[in-house]
Amino acid sequence: MECGEPVEQVVLRPGMTVGELVAAMGRAGAYNGGALAKATDIYEAMLRDRQVTRFLGLAGAMVPAGMGRIVSDLIDGGFVDVLVSTGANLTHDIIEALGCRHYHGTVSCSDVDLREAEINRIYDVFLPNESFIRFEEFMQERFDALSSRGPLPVREFLSELGLALPSGILASAARRSVPVFCPAVADSMIGLQHWLFTQAHRPALDALSDMNDLLSLCFDARSAGVLIVGGGVPKNYILQGMLMTPRGFDYAVQLTGDRPDLGGLSGATLDEARSWGKITATARAVTVYGDATITLPLLVAAVRERIGV
Amino acid sequence: MECGEPVEQVVLRPGMTVGELVAAMGRAGAYNGGALAKATDIYEAMLRDRQVTRFLGLAGAMVPAGMGRIVSDLIDGGFVDVLVSTGANLTHDIIEALGCRHYHGTVSCSDVDLREAEINRIYDVFLPNESFIRFEEFMQERFDALSSRGPLPVREFLSELGLALPSGILASAARRSVPVFCPAVADSMIGLQHWLFTQAHRPALDALSDMNDLLSLCFDARSAGVLIVGGGVPKNYILQGMLMTPRGFDYAVQLTGDRPDLGGLSGATLDEARSWGKITATARAVTVYGDATITLPLLVAAVRERIGV
Amino acid sequence: MECGEPVEQVVLRPGMTVGELVAAMGRAGAYNGGALAKATDIYEAMLRDRQVTRFLGLAGAMVPAGMGRIVSDLIDGGFVDVLVSTGANLTHDIIEALGCRHYHGTVSCSDVDLREAEINRIYDVFLPNESFIRFEEFMQERFDALSSRGPLPVREFLSELGLALPSGILASAARRSVPVFCPAVADSMIGLQHWLFTQAHRPALDALSDMNDLLSLCFDARSAGVLIVGGGVPKNYILQGMLMTPRGFDYAVQLTGDRPDLGGLSGATLDEARSWGKITATARAVTVYGDATITLPLLVAAVRERIGV
Amino acid sequence: MECGEPVEQVVLRPGMTVGELVAAMGRAGAYNGGALAKATDIYEAMLRDRQVTRFLGLAGAMVPAGMGRIVSDLIDGGFVDVLVSTGANLTHDIIEALGCRHYHGTVSCSDVDLREAEINRIYDVFLPNESFIRFEEFMQERFDALSSRGPLPVREFLSELGLALPSGILASAARRSVPVFCPAVADSMIGLQHWLFTQAHRPALDALSDMNDLLSLCFDARSAGVLIVGGGVPKNYILQGMLMTPRGFDYAVQLTGDRPDLGGLSGATLDEARSWGKITATARAVTVYGDATITLPLLVAAVRERIGV
Repeated sequence: MECGEPVEQVVLRPGMTVGELVAAMGRAGAYNGGALAKATDIYEAMLRDRQVTRFLGLAGAMVPAGMGRIVSDLIDGGFVDVLVSTGANLTHDIIEALGCRHYHGTVSCSDVDLREAEINRIYDVFLPNESFIRFEEFMQERFDALSSRGPLPVREFLSELGLALPSGILASAARRSVPVFCPAVADSMIGLQHWLFTQAHRPALDALSDMNDLLSLCFDARSAGVLIVGGGVPKNYILQGMLMTPRGFDYAVQLTGDRPDLGGLSGATLDEARSWGKITATARAVTVYGDATITLPLLVAAVRERIGV
Repeated sequence: MECGEPVEQVVLRPGMTVGELVAAMGRAGAYNGGALAKATDIYEAMLRDRQVTRFLGLAGAMVPAGMGRIVSDLIDGGFVDVLVSTGANLTHDIIEALGCRHYHGTVSCSDVDLREAEINRIYDVFLPNESFIRFEEFMQERFDALSSRGPLPVREFLSELGLALPSGILASAARRSVPVFCPAVADSMIGLQHWLFTQAHRPALDALSDMNDLLSLCFDARSAGVLIVGGGVPKNYILQGMLMTPRGFDYAVQLTGDRPDLGGLSGATLDEARSWGKITATARAVTVYGDATITLPLLVAAVRERIGV
Repeated sequence: MECGEPVEQVVLRPGMTVGELVAAMGRAGAYNGGALAKATDIYEAMLRDRQVTRFLGLAGAMVPAGMGRIVSDLIDGGFVDVLVSTGANLTHDIIEALGCRHYHGTVSCSDVDLREAEINRIYDVFLPNESFIRFEEFMQERFDALSSRGPLPVREFLSELGLALPSGILASAARRSVPVFCPAVADSMIGLQHWLFTQAHRPALDALSDMNDLLSLCFDARSAGVLIVGGGVPKNYILQGMLMTPRGFDYAVQLTGDRPDLGGLSGATLDEARSWGKITATARAVTVYGDATITLPLLVAAVRERIGV
Repeated sequence: MECGEPVEQVVLRPGMTVGELVAAMGRAGAYNGGALAKATDIYEAMLRDRQVTRFLGLAGAMVPAGMGRIVSDLIDGGFVDVLVSTGANLTHDIIEALGCRHYHGTVSCSDVDLREAEINRIYDVFLPNESFIRFEEFMQERFDALSSRGPLPVREFLSELGLALPSGILASAARRSVPVFCPAVADSMIGLQHWLFTQAHRPALDALSDMNDLLSLCFDARSAGVLIVGGGVPKNYILQGMLMTPRGFDYAVQLTGDRPDLGGLSGATLDEARSWGKITATARAVTVYGDATITLPLLVAAVRERIGV
């Protein structure tokens, strides 16, 4: 057993950049601050390596919390090759792209009063019901317009949505031809809108045919890296895809608020993923435990500072 | 502001029953111990009320942890009208039903060594790779046998699987005609097996048509109750179903290891769900924070003691 | 790498005892449910082994939550040789012994309104201010009565308090001559009362001389075991005591709601304690993560069932 | 019920400062990212307000993680009027000031091997035993030098230690006459060293007389603010001090990794503290849940950027 480098006490400086702060956290090197700095190293390496297919998994209510633009900017910057998202994040992305907004709220309130005021609560974020009316109009109109092409793979449908939207994750992905997968689309407002549409029309979506595309991307990757925000379905879907191939991920960064001892995949360590072969024995991998509304901006700002774009 | 009943100090007695213990925790009434006792009251009321359609959401790696039988016994006892599960729990249910086993393991080990030994780790549970070989044989054989019926709704397919298995959650559900929904089926080994099947055959599954059935169950319920184990897709899928109806859940019990302040749905309070109308303004609802390998057996053993079956 | 015993699915039975439930959780053997069953094995062995000096560390607001009687009953049963507690638990123990009560409350309330109603909140437990008036009378009277004996070691003072009280942890400990240590006595209402007393009198307490006694107990122990409830000062104080001796704890069970990755001692694994020599290389040790209002009653009820008293 | 400001999606820019990042997190305003931004506003106001007595509570293994310098720099900058710390942080501060170092380590190791290598582990930080030998020499020499002055209040003794050290928290505090309180000094290596000293000498420390000083500081404060890092004894000791006065804290920021539903004080919300009168009804207060190795550097760097020093 040997000691590594000495822990350097963090020295702060007024006006220091995020990259400088994270570098200081890396020289300290302890707990989740140290893990975040290591994540920055790995994510930087993964973005710089031209051979790597870069996956991004997005779970948790990130768009309502203002984290969506970080993702769309990563896409615009060419740093995402494959996006796998929960349906909820895409729903809220569409809502924002349609010009509706999420609002600062509070947890110290009566949810029954909120119900009467037609405001939906996501922890301390408020979202008025009227957003969903606008969302419904848009979605029904899109299903109507696209249904003639027969049941579309979800990925293709999401790309069409993106092309019809002025901004946001789906818009950026569509413009840059970055595939967006939503394996649990049924479990979202998008799925509910599709159900509504099918009350009077034939199905417009095909939820399973996407797997072929995802698996092809996994098989075709010369090397692969993944940034996992929040666990959930996207984490598992991305990792299981690679599981089918002869190789695993070479780079993996996970930002999660869960904990490993409960056994659930969202909190599971990436070491555990090595036993399955989802990531390689020698992969550079790290988990940062904490709220992604803090760790994601820190990580991405620091990496973008290093890369310079 | 007024105080409620006095906190009664918990008195333990050698040989006391689980129901007696939970009753004592209820008289103490504090923190998650108090919440668990309250959950027992609510779940008992929900099971005794003949008007209630009882939903069960199952997420987290519960079957590998030995919690599957609690669910299948609840189904056999007639206490579940609708089950919504992650694909993973169903995968592991099938594996156990096929006679393969999960094993006691440890977290203090090298995952690279485990990989070489062809053992997959789920926290401190080990699962040999060979289980997946047996699983694959079974699944491919079933897809083959059923594909002539055209793409089957997932729910129907899962029912067929259950009929072909001797025991477990799917078997119990199939025998009692309890519908099992798996809205994120693509995100599981079942989904991967289907993908494998489709490399040489036409699709055997239709992932979206189930929503109609779930929504019908929601609309038809005179009253509704839900036991949510572990959040995830099942929690949201069940709650969003009721969201479309004019009413919400009247009873709701949630067992989760997450925390609300991260904004994710898995850790969100049930009060938050009132703002959306997913549960009614007057619904009896409680969240118990903790590991479901402790809280689920406690809850169900206590309720079954009260109900007497 | 090898697998251990197969995971046995938990079978519940109406009217089963707590010991039977924990045994079933042990045969399942996963996550914190498995850890709790292992803790029961270790705690049973520790209580049965006549050579062992049994330490108990008590932190967290356990008495307000109704967990105090579990501790006093363990003391009455002869299962505790040394108790180390936070001052807060002893304060609330005195309050209950004086006939004041804690009350069922709620988190969904205005703390400003509570303030006006002179009710103090501990999560969902309410405690009226008047309890502290009764507490003050008792404490000042005791300081007055005992101050003639010069500054008393805290341990001795707590024993005198126990003799003056009809029931509770301090009363049980005093009657059975179980030493009670409170290393952070200043950090509690007891400390504040002492400060108040010293405004007009000479100090009645000596906070540091207790260490000699604790260290003697550590040095004299032929073998040592510890049950740690909640981390904090008691955990560290007990472990650091043994650190000074040539040996460490042979048995250790820890119930905590914290997590290891934050670096704090309360959430630290017991394996970490091996590196320090606080517990022996071969010690039987386990941590159960979760709310002690659930895990403590479960653990103690199961062990008492096995031991039969 | 009304909505607040719209959530603004976070826009990152390469080279942005920490203050700019936190401002962006504030405009997003959600979950712990939003709380951190709010904490920055409150901490800035508290530091700018010349009337405020600024308390700092320090718990958790912060110095081993490289966070000590942030504290000593705050003291040097004149931003701390009263420090309350665990004994452990002061122990590690002394160790660093003596020229010994903490080292980058790993959790993936055998603690038994570490024990044999005489390396102590604090999560992923390693500390060789030899540091404690150096620490012992220093402490015994200090006790020896100071014991002629009779039992010193801990605060006074810590000030003497600081004067004898070249750098670190104690050194900065001593040089600027900032009082350092360590209410649980017995529960630390400092306490153990004192015990060792008393094996051959009369006591050199008086642990309780400090309360007078702390209470005077509380009573004399025209207005009071507190930054709580990590809960534990420092949090309670600071809050209970103010509890005795007619007023409470006007500003309060808490960085903690705990959770409120376990009932323990470390995870308790600051709203709960309002019911006790520890903070005023109108106090500006916020809790940021997360690892302080991330949240503390972010908070302080952002505030120092705003204040310009």
